[in-house]
Amino acid sequence: MSTRAIILSVGDELVLGQTVDTNSAWLSQQLASIGLPVAAHVTVGDDQKAIEQAIDEAAQRAEVIIITGGIGPTEDDLTRQALAAVMKTPLELNEDWLHRLEAFFRRSGREMPPMNRIQAMIPRGAQMIDNTAGTAAGIRAELTNGPRVFVMPGVPKEMKIMFERSIRPELERESSGAVILSKTLHTFGLGESTIAEKLGELMKRDRNPSVGTTVSQGIVSLRINARFADRESAQRELNATEAACGFALGELIYGADDEPLAAVVGKMLKRSNHSVATAESCTGGLLAKYLTDIAGSSAYFKYGWVTYADEAKQSELDVPAPLLAQHGAVSEPVVATMADGARNKSGADYALAISGIAGPDGGTPDKPVGTVCIALCYQQRTIARTFRFLGDREMIRDRSAKMALTMLRFELLGKPLPF
Amino acid sequence: MSTRAIILSVGDELVLGQTVDTNSAWLSQQLASIGLPVAAHVTVGDDQKAIEQAIDEAAQRAEVIIITGGIGPTEDDLTRQALAAVMKTPLELNEDWLHRLEAFFRRSGREMPPMNRIQAMIPRGAQMIDNTAGTAAGIRAELTNGPRVFVMPGVPKEMKIMFERSIRPELERESSGAVILSKTLHTFGLGESTIAEKLGELMKRDRNPSVGTTVSQGIVSLRINARFADRESAQRELNATEAACGFALGELIYGADDEPLAAVVGKMLKRSNHSVATAESCTGGLLAKYLTDIAGSSAYFKYGWVTYADEAKQSELDVPAPLLAQHGAVSEPVVATMADGARNKSGADYALAISGIAGPDGGTPDKPVGTVCIALCYQQRTIARTFRFLGDREMIRDRSAKMALTMLRFELLGKPLPF
Repeated sequence: MSTRAIILSVGDELVLGQTVDTNSAWLSQQLASIGLPVAAHVTVGDDQKAIEQAIDEAAQRAEVIIITGGIGPTEDDLTRQALAAVMKTPLELNEDWLHRLEAFFRRSGREMPPMNRIQAMIPRGAQMIDNTAGTAAGIRAELTNGPRVFVMPGVPKEMKIMFERSIRPELERESSGAVILSKTLHTFGLGESTIAEKLGELMKRDRNPSVGTTVSQGIVSLRINARFADRESAQRELNATEAACGFALGELIYGADDEPLAAVVGKMLKRSNHSVATAESCTGGLLAKYLTDIAGSSAYFKYGWVTYADEAKQSELDVPAPLLAQHGAVSEPVVATMADGARNKSGADYALAISGIAGPDGGTPDKPVGTVCIALCYQQRTIARTFRFLGDREMIRDRSAKMALTMLRFELLGKPLPF
Repeated sequence: MSTRAIILSVGDELVLGQTVDTNSAWLSQQLASIGLPVAAHVTVGDDQKAIEQAIDEAAQRAEVIIITGGIGPTEDDLTRQALAAVMKTPLELNEDWLHRLEAFFRRSGREMPPMNRIQAMIPRGAQMIDNTAGTAAGIRAELTNGPRVFVMPGVPKEMKIMFERSIRPELERESSGAVILSKTLHTFGLGESTIAEKLGELMKRDRNPSVGTTVSQGIVSLRINARFADRESAQRELNATEAACGFALGELIYGADDEPLAAVVGKMLKRSNHSVATAESCTGGLLAKYLTDIAGSSAYFKYGWVTYADEAKQSELDVPAPLLAQHGAVSEPVVATMADGARNKSGADYALAISGIAGPDGGTPDKPVGTVCIALCYQQRTIARTFRFLGDREMIRDRSAKMALTMLRFELLGKPLPF
C-alpha cells in the first residue's frame, strides 16, 4: 500500500459548528498535488482524550498524520499534551523556541505572558517546526509504530506558511505513486455556464486531464487536474490542456493559480511604464486597496480619492455641481468627469472612476441597487460604461472594483472589452 | 453518558480538498442547539470499505450517526451499499420511492434514466426519508448494537431541508439533554495570552458556561458556551458569564457575534453626529474600505485620500516637502500632518491617517517592515502613535486599519488607548 495521510483538526469551535474547517480542504489539495492521498479528515473538540483516541486510530490507518489546532497558549489547547500521552513521553521545554518567543514579545514591546511558555514545550523526542508568522511552533514526531505526525497551528495563514516551508518539502521528496498536477486559470466578466459552453468537450467528466469550473467572488476559474503515473507525463498533459483552454477562451483568461487580477494589471502597467490613479464613490477605497495589495505597486499607483459624498467629488475632483444635479452621482457623465479629475490632479497615465449604488438602500426604478458606472480615461479619451451587478453590498462593491481593473486590462491589451 | 452524535461526510471531492465541507458545521450548530453534542466530524472518500469502517467506528462512540453524501445515482455513490454491509442486510427496492422518482422525471418531461433506480434502494429494515428537493431519498436505520443512522444527500440545500423536516423533530423530541447557547465577544489590540490572563478563572476548562479564545485576522474573540438542561438556565448563565467577561476586559470588548469593528465605530459616530475622513499611505484605501463596508456609512464618511506617493501627500494633504525630507514618510510628524490636512480639506470632525512599511521590502534597521504610524486628529488636538505589527503585507495592512479604527473608538469613548 502506498503512503496515506489522515488530517486531524482540533477545536471546540469546529465540532460546535461555529467555524467551518477550511484547513483540511486546503491541506488535501496540497497533499494530492504531491501524490499523497488523503484517506480521511477527522475533527474533534478540545478534549485531550478525544485527541489521543483520534491520533491512535489515525496511526492504525495512515503513515502521515497532519494535525491542525490546539497548540495555542491557553488551557483549552491540548494537542501537545495529547500527542505526548500517545507517545508516552513527557513534554519538555525547548530553550531555542523559548528564546524566540521572548524575543518576539520584546520586539512588540511587551513582556512574554507566563502562559506562553507552554508554546515552547514539545514531547520528548519530537522536533520543533518553525513558525514565521506566530507564536505557536509546530511539532514533528515519529510514533513508535511508524507513522509520522505533524502538528500545526489552526490559524489558516500560519498553518499554510508552515506547511509550505517545512512540511511539504519533506513529503514531496519521498512521494511516489500517481502524481496529480493541477493548475487553475481565472476569468472575470462572464458567467460560469457561458465559460463552460465555450470550453465544450474539454469539460467531459472522464477526460484526463479533467477540467472543472468553480466560482468564487465573481471569478470563474477553470481547475485542470492531470493524474498520471509520472510527473513528466502529468506536466506535459497539463500543459496541453491549459493550451486548449487558452485557445477556447483567449484573453478572457487573465491569470493562473494564486495570481490576483490586480497583480496582472500591475505587471502590465509596470512593463509599459504607465501609472494609474483612482477615484471611487461606492467602492469606497476597495479599488485602491486591490491595487495596493500588490507589493511594489507604488511604481504605478500614487494617488487615489474616495469621494463618497457629492461635495467631495466637487472639491477634490472638480466635478461641476450642475453635472451632478442634472445626471446624478451615478451616471456616465459624472463618472467620466471623476476620472478626468483624478487624471488631471495626479498626472497619472490612466485613471479609473467608479460610482454606483451598492445598496442595500438607495436604489430607484431607473437605477436599481447594483447599478454601477465605471470610467477609464487615457490621454484625450474617456470611456464610461454602466453595469448592473447582482448580489449584496459586498458583492456589488467587489464586482465593481474587479470590472474597473478588467476595463484597464483590456485597454492595456489594446482590445475592446468583450462584454 | 448522554447521547452523542458523530457526523460523517462522504465524497472524493472532500478528501481531495476540492470542496470545503460546510455541511458538518451547519449540522453541528443544529445539533448543539437541541442539546445533542457532536463528538467528532469524519470525512472519507467514495470508497465503500472506508465508509463501512467509518460507520463501524462511529457506532462504537456515538448513539446518533449523521451521514451526508454518497447517495446520488452514479457509480461512485456508495453510502447505501456501505450501510447495508454494516447492517449485514441486502439492499431492497422501495416501490413507493421508485414511483415518486418516475413521476418526478415524467413531470420534467424526461424518462427516468435506469441509473436512478438505485436511488430507490435501501438496506432491508431501514426507512426512507422524504426528499422534497431532489431525487436522493434519505435513509434512517437502527444498527443492531444500538446507534441510529441518518443518511442525507450531500447537496447542502437538500440536506438542510431534509434535516429540518424529518430528522430534527425526531431528535428534538427525545433530547432530554442539555441546551447549548453561545455568544462571541470581540477584542482588538492585545494578544490572545494577555486576554486570557485578564479572563483568569473564567477560562477554567471545567467551567460552565465555558469561555474559550480564538484569533482571526488580529481579532481575539471570546467564545462563551452555556450548556444547561433548559433554555432559560442556559440564557441566564450565558448573560452572567458575558457580564463577567465584560467586567474583566472592560472596553477592550468592542462588539459581539457578527458585528464588525467598523460598524461599531460607525454607530458611535452616527450617535454623536460626527464625521471622519481618512488619509492613507500603506493601507492604500483599506481603512476607507472598512468604513464603507457598512451600509449607511455615507452619514459619517465623505472624504478619503490614498496618498501612496510623497508627491500625493504634498499636493493633496499639504504635507510640507521639508517635513517629509527630514522625518521620512513613515513618521509621527508626517502622519499627524496628513491627518490635519485631511481634516482641513474635508471639514470632518475626526481624521485618521496611516503611513507605514507594509513590506515585504522597504524596511530599514530603524524602521523595519511592520512599522506603522497612525494619527488621529480631533478639534485642535492631533495624536500620533507608532506601532510595530507582525506578519506579512496583508496582515500588517489589516492590523493598521483596525488599529486606526480602534484609536477612533477609544477617542469616541473618551478614554485613552489601553495599549
